Amino acid sequence: MPVGLSNTLPKIHPVAGVYLGATAAKIKKNGKTDLVIIELMEGTKTAATFTTNAACAAPVTLAKSHLKSKQPRALLINSGNANAATGEAGLENARKTCQWLADELGCSLEEVLPFSTGVIGEPLPIQKIQQGLPDALANRSINGWPQAMAGIMTTDIVPKMVSRVVNIDGHDITFTGMAKGSGMIHPNMATMLGFVVTDAKISQALLETCLQQAVKKSFNRITVDGDTSTNDACTLSATQQVDMPSISDINSTAYHAFSQAVNEIMTELAQMIVRDGEGATKFIEVEVNGGLSEEECLKVAHAVALSPLVKTAMFASDPNWGRILAAVGRAGLVDLDINQLQIYLGDVCIVDKGGRAASYTEDQGQAVMKQADISVRIELNRGEVSETVWTCDFSYDYVKINAEYRS
Amino acid sequence: MPVGLSNTLPKIHPVAGVYLGATAAKIKKNGKTDLVIIELMEGTKTAATFTTNAACAAPVTLAKSHLKSKQPRALLINSGNANAATGEAGLENARKTCQWLADELGCSLEEVLPFSTGVIGEPLPIQKIQQGLPDALANRSINGWPQAMAGIMTTDIVPKMVSRVVNIDGHDITFTGMAKGSGMIHPNMATMLGFVVTDAKISQALLETCLQQAVKKSFNRITVDGDTSTNDACTLSATQQVDMPSISDINSTAYHAFSQAVNEIMTELAQMIVRDGEGATKFIEVEVNGGLSEEECLKVAHAVALSPLVKTAMFASDPNWGRILAAVGRAGLVDLDINQLQIYLGDVCIVDKGGRAASYTEDQGQAVMKQADISVRIELNRGEVSETVWTCDFSYDYVKINAEYRS
Repeated sequence: MPVGLSNTLPKIHPVAGVYLGATAAKIKKNGKTDLVIIELMEGTKTAATFTTNAACAAPVTLAKSHLKSKQPRALLINSGNANAATGEAGLENARKTCQWLADELGCSLEEVLPFSTGVIGEPLPIQKIQQGLPDALANRSINGWPQAMAGIMTTDIVPKMVSRVVNIDGHDITFTGMAKGSGMIHPNMATMLGFVVTDAKISQALLETCLQQAVKKSFNRITVDGDTSTNDACTLSATQQVDMPSISDINSTAYHAFSQAVNEIMTELAQMIVRDGEGATKFIEVEVNGGLSEEECLKVAHAVALSPLVKTAMFASDPNWGRILAAVGRAGLVDLDINQLQIYLGDVCIVDKGGRAASYTEDQGQAVMKQADISVRIELNRGEVSETVWTCDFSYDYVKINAEYRS
Repeated sequence: MPVGLSNTLPKIHPVAGVYLGATAAKIKKNGKTDLVIIELMEGTKTAATFTTNAACAAPVTLAKSHLKSKQPRALLINSGNANAATGEAGLENARKTCQWLADELGCSLEEVLPFSTGVIGEPLPIQKIQQGLPDALANRSINGWPQAMAGIMTTDIVPKMVSRVVNIDGHDITFTGMAKGSGMIHPNMATMLGFVVTDAKISQALLETCLQQAVKKSFNRITVDGDTSTNDACTLSATQQVDMPSISDINSTAYHAFSQAVNEIMTELAQMIVRDGEGATKFIEVEVNGGLSEEECLKVAHAVALSPLVKTAMFASDPNWGRILAAVGRAGLVDLDINQLQIYLGDVCIVDKGGRAASYTEDQGQAVMKQADISVRIELNRGEVSETVWTCDFSYDYVKINAEYRS
């Protein structure tokens, strides 16, 4: 029951130089599509970012290593098995599958980046991947997005895609991206994968900068328990196919427009992951204003967004302002004076002067809490910094999904 | 359904110089006992520790201030209302109730310490407290422990008391303590209160040291979401009534024995709080060995103990070792090599060399997980430090209790 999402894909704009193929290689027990190839035209530049989890998966280790030597010509993605916590054998398996694809495409091993998502700790069924590759290769096409999207999903209920054409300095630039991740808290499913491509001409340096900044404000602002899973990865590839001057000046209007487009797409994808959160019935935005630093704003935002008490109250549509205030209080801010802050639910001030706002009525709070999209705004009134994170509520179904997942 | 606890009180040894009175002042809606006085004989020394939550409750602020000037002669405790997030009026209310009790006992305002536990954000009903005080005073007695215990409970299913007589250097010393707190994560109920008294003769300095050290390894090692609630408080009072040399040397065998007794009692009380955790069906010990520092051991222990994924797996009796490994991996340890660590469920090695232990079988894991008491042991193999924390599982009932709490 994703919050405010549907099963319908948006209008997808193909991206020149990107060919997607997919197949059902029987890695997933349910027989659904689980093997995806994204071929990138020669000359494509790619930036990537990965989980910081020390127990990162074999494909993460290998992809990082490959990126150091070559620009990728293909992304090889499987769902149904994370190839995580699989030790040295897992690395060897990832390497083999990349080599097979490299042989088919006539490129080198290092030009293939592997990505896996699914159950942790099971050996990657490489024979199935080997057998599936020819079909995935055969059906690859510039229009292969829907099948590719299906092929990266695990427990996702809905597909997550954003596609748009943006005019930058007179050139129509296409951006198309997809993401998977069901559940804000889902490290055992090696949660989050995101792939965004564009046909823009842009330098490698700016592509890297753009990805880092966009991920920071999007995928890193959804509460995965404050964590990263073992397999989280996000790539941004630019095929350079548009006939335009290369974007290479960070202060140019072109870069500004490019980076804004990537930010918006990644934020939308990230929010879709939260909306499709396990058991989610509410989408919650936590905005913290007036902090002294990004760090303290995030401390407060995460204390609220991760609090099981706040999240169960949200599930119950209960405007339990005491739980929000207590979460802010325990966030660990130095010299925080709770008498100086205000907390809003939507536009309703619920906390002021260290307690319930004088103007507040339960009816006002109830009206906000009944909505599917809820905003919590905390005004710290001690600085100029703002941060926003997104999360979802905590329902019976969350427990049910996670208690029964392996059975 | 507390894990391994019963409703039966242990044999309680009264403590010379401690008089407990209690009554039902109708602060609680259900009409149960909710007002408690613990009178401490003149000459009693008290150490206390309080929540670090910036949104701490009025009684916490007042008690800290009173402790600075006088040794307490009485503890005034109410349940049913936390007097938290009540602003300046809350402080004034706490002060009034202390003054009323001080007048009755013929002591000064500063000699009364207030404690409140219950719902946050509602004005303290001080008239009810004023009306209840005479009855609580009238029935106070050295044997008043059971009523006092009842009077500090909120959503606790069972009472939590430990009492023992320990021979220290030839003197029989009595220690009796009680605690309340239902749910490892319960800041809105202003969770944890603990009161331990002894008749020992001991210096104020050592009493303080002993309390700080004991709390650190007991109440601060149960996972309250990594948090402290707005009202958490714990006191250790020594009435000095035993005819013995005062314990004043930190290196003496007497202090060692004293401190060991307090540690054991507080650890037992702390574990009782977890066992009575909201919706708890399992008691989980997370032990981390071989760390470089206390800080990193606690990071790992809390990453595991607070992980909703680990906790729902525990609820499902699912030996999902991948979730535990992923939690360790994301704990944020510098240069952690997951190939060097082992993870045990009970005595069963589940993770070794970065993946599932070669010797592990699902049947072995299942056998451990079926038990009500489960131990998770993580061997980091990179240092000499160990830490242990306790938590409980995450069940449907946790969501139910917290979603429906106010309705």
